[in-house]
Amino acid sequence: MKQFINSKETLVTEALDGVVRTSNSRLARLDGYPHIRVVVRADWDRSRVALVSGGGSGHEPSHAGFVGQGMLTAAVCGDVFASPSVDAVLAGILAVTGKAGCLLIVKNYTGDRLNFGLAAERARAFGLKVAMVIVDDDVALPDLPQARGVAGTLFVHKIAGALAEQGADLDTVAAAARRVIAGAISIGMSLDTCTVPGSPKEDRIGVGMAELGLGIHGEAGVEQVGFAGARAAMAMVVDRLLPHVGPGEHVALLNNLGGATPLEMSVLAEELARSVLADRVKWIVGPAEMMTSLDMQGFSVSLLPVTGDEVAALAAPVAPPAWPGLSALGAVALRPLPDGLSPIQPLPSANPARRALIERCCAAMIASEAALNALDAKSGDGDTGSTLAGAARALVAALDRLPLADGTQLYRAIGNELSQTMGGSSGVLLAIFFAAAGDASASGKTWIGALEAGLDRVCQVGGAHPGDRTMIDALAPALATLSDGVAAAAAAARAGADATAAMTRAKAGRASYQAQDKLAGYADPGAEAVARLFEHLAQGAA
Amino acid sequence: MKQFINSKETLVTEALDGVVRTSNSRLARLDGYPHIRVVVRADWDRSRVALVSGGGSGHEPSHAGFVGQGMLTAAVCGDVFASPSVDAVLAGILAVTGKAGCLLIVKNYTGDRLNFGLAAERARAFGLKVAMVIVDDDVALPDLPQARGVAGTLFVHKIAGALAEQGADLDTVAAAARRVIAGAISIGMSLDTCTVPGSPKEDRIGVGMAELGLGIHGEAGVEQVGFAGARAAMAMVVDRLLPHVGPGEHVALLNNLGGATPLEMSVLAEELARSVLADRVKWIVGPAEMMTSLDMQGFSVSLLPVTGDEVAALAAPVAPPAWPGLSALGAVALRPLPDGLSPIQPLPSANPARRALIERCCAAMIASEAALNALDAKSGDGDTGSTLAGAARALVAALDRLPLADGTQLYRAIGNELSQTMGGSSGVLLAIFFAAAGDASASGKTWIGALEAGLDRVCQVGGAHPGDRTMIDALAPALATLSDGVAAAAAAARAGADATAAMTRAKAGRASYQAQDKLAGYADPGAEAVARLFEHLAQGAA
Repeated sequence: MKQFINSKETLVTEALDGVVRTSNSRLARLDGYPHIRVVVRADWDRSRVALVSGGGSGHEPSHAGFVGQGMLTAAVCGDVFASPSVDAVLAGILAVTGKAGCLLIVKNYTGDRLNFGLAAERARAFGLKVAMVIVDDDVALPDLPQARGVAGTLFVHKIAGALAEQGADLDTVAAAARRVIAGAISIGMSLDTCTVPGSPKEDRIGVGMAELGLGIHGEAGVEQVGFAGARAAMAMVVDRLLPHVGPGEHVALLNNLGGATPLEMSVLAEELARSVLADRVKWIVGPAEMMTSLDMQGFSVSLLPVTGDEVAALAAPVAPPAWPGLSALGAVALRPLPDGLSPIQPLPSANPARRALIERCCAAMIASEAALNALDAKSGDGDTGSTLAGAARALVAALDRLPLADGTQLYRAIGNELSQTMGGSSGVLLAIFFAAAGDASASGKTWIGALEAGLDRVCQVGGAHPGDRTMIDALAPALATLSDGVAAAAAAARAGADATAAMTRAKAGRASYQAQDKLAGYADPGAEAVARLFEHLAQGAA
Repeated sequence: MKQFINSKETLVTEALDGVVRTSNSRLARLDGYPHIRVVVRADWDRSRVALVSGGGSGHEPSHAGFVGQGMLTAAVCGDVFASPSVDAVLAGILAVTGKAGCLLIVKNYTGDRLNFGLAAERARAFGLKVAMVIVDDDVALPDLPQARGVAGTLFVHKIAGALAEQGADLDTVAAAARRVIAGAISIGMSLDTCTVPGSPKEDRIGVGMAELGLGIHGEAGVEQVGFAGARAAMAMVVDRLLPHVGPGEHVALLNNLGGATPLEMSVLAEELARSVLADRVKWIVGPAEMMTSLDMQGFSVSLLPVTGDEVAALAAPVAPPAWPGLSALGAVALRPLPDGLSPIQPLPSANPARRALIERCCAAMIASEAALNALDAKSGDGDTGSTLAGAARALVAALDRLPLADGTQLYRAIGNELSQTMGGSSGVLLAIFFAAAGDASASGKTWIGALEAGLDRVCQVGGAHPGDRTMIDALAPALATLSDGVAAAAAAARAGADATAAMTRAKAGRASYQAQDKLAGYADPGAEAVARLFEHLAQGAA
């Protein structure tokens, strides 16, 4: 697997240097590379209880990303998914612990328990006050006395961190941490495994399947389940949490395991807010990446029953930008739509000549549908013909309600119709064209002058000019010769459209991102449409 | 592709509701679903210049995630990678624009230019002051007059946002935005394409390759290049930026395109700080997800030459948590390692009987290497035998410097040796065992009592107990019968180890995550090691 790293061996040291460097001087690290990788608060004076956490790397922003005022004092970082050594933990403890003592916050994995445990013993031999709590919030394995520590660890960091920042003593901070640990529960779901640096990616989750109750180190989930979208996924996660949920108000923590997009996470937040847990979940932390498993495309939900003091501790401001803050989880706040969105509909009126002209223009576009689609397929989506033909059919259907007798109003009404039925760039371009033509007509321009004013506005807003391989390359010469008659305009439009086939570098629109060799020899579909329109009118006029 | 969504059609509306709900009441949305998807500041009073941005979705947290005090006033959101409609933009403008007017910040794509442009025309028809700026920071396509707008857009949001928040008038805010746009440059690199909801994933970047100069909508990069790690990748990006970089101090913005892990992004930040640009880049924004392309595993670097006023505007605090803040980019702050990490080495001394006992214990472990590895392979890594044999060899080699004549110091010294040579859980467990035994010995316990004290501490720190399928199941009965002689202890250890083969649910250690049917019939390798040790001693004693 390709990854933006230099080597597996230097990954953690380089990444931590990157974290320290971009912390705006909030963080420092101990000078113990490569074996001792400890990130500490740069502003720490040992005057209060220190909080030390850590463990294997690969869970970023945990834990170094949560070092800072109001959360951790130090993070001790192992290799990816491997516990740090006793010496590293001891270095972290000794570096930050003063008379007020130190709380070690450890996720319940054997390696972490042991390395942090032995380091605590050694630190106590120096006369330091060291307490240790073990976070075991995972409810995926219900009959396991040794539940894993996962994202619920963030509740401990935040609540203990707020108390320590306020100056609470070690017993108080440790007791608060233990209360949080007793109440916190978590479970995760993932659609894919994670990519461990230096190892091939495990491909164990099949098409249409998800894993439920997974760990944060690539451990397989407790069960593979069918995946049926975000709503069903959240319902399944909520269902596994429910047996462990007591009465009272809860905080939820919605954690991105690393590879889910913000769009997906926001949909999952919405589903959580609509779930059967909604009446008990009054606050939410996230959605955000907090306790990741490298690039795993999954999420976890943690729940904590809370007192008012705990809510205040969770809401207290902190320095680490990785902490997403606590939000009340309520209804979606709505604002009424402003007035003035719907253009005033002009009164319909009749003008047989104009009606016939519009019908012939529309017929030209409908007849060109397949040819323009084929041309567009050379450089784009292949839908120019269908877009124009669809708009033409809609315009024909709207003829009875158009103000055909009033030229100015008619231009504007056509613009409105096209912008509502076509969508996308072409609809808006034509709406701008006709809106500006209507304005020009109102200010006394001839009908050709009005159309030229529309073209000017299109060039200005769209940023395209003659020679840029757009419809302008046909429309501009056609309008410039239209006073000589429609046949001259048609010839000019045709010449202009044909010339676009030699413009091998589009300078505006989507085709501008295409390699030039793909464009050579094919006219721009928009210019071709304009040429076909004038040719059709010229044939009718002949 | 599996994604945590319900349907392509409802993705954006559901995600935006999730964003609004988890904003702690900072945000609201217009009541215009499904076609009008506009997120607005909930606290907005129209007293200052409004900033409206937006475009296609799929770039989260852009743009809804940057709505809030000090940045955007409203975000108008289209479908994934599709411009919002004119009506939606107009609704956004009308909803937030007061007498001070409104600045539209538009990325340079035809659809966005047109829809925002026509909406601006219509809003001006209501008598509103509306200015529009087009961001075109991408330098991937050097000969394209219409450069794309990418992550440099964030510089505009932040600097214009700070000025608007301070009460600057529309001309001032728009002029500042245009100055930023004139100076901002960006380029991106990716190892993989993005996954567009509802579409199959395009597989166009081969093994060992990366794309340079890509867009944020899945457009192919300008070139495919060989990928040779993070350092070379950053060097290539810097190389493409350099021709566009002028003199003076710059701010860099390091953007995660969505799928790179925080570890990767921190390594890239470190590489940027070590690059040839380091002398000109004095500040950095990120690394963070700011202008993503769904789940694309890539990054982009944007640069802006800055005045002091602009630095102040970039550093000003804002409400949206997605803004990562501005950091000075300097040296990695180091703190010295604390004293006391290295245990004091006791003086060597002689005791032939103890030396012989240790040698026999080590011989037992060395002789059992293959058998214990084979047993461990049934439930774990298959390395228990090698770990123990390696430690035994190291301990034999260390005999000459051990304090063999002092029982208390000897226990502690053995613990230190084992923790330094074994690593991992087993080394620490044995270090805790011998450290506690040494303490007990110092306080007057018999040698058997000291070993029992060591076992107690191992149970406490490791969280394992008899019956949990660990080495304790052999060690506990052996120590309990050791006063009856080593033969009795060996028999008890053997019975305890054999009993672990029937413990089909490990309750501690790594095997606890294994399905029980994989464990049935095989003894725990740690317990087996203890049994083999005592059996070896009993044979020697017989």
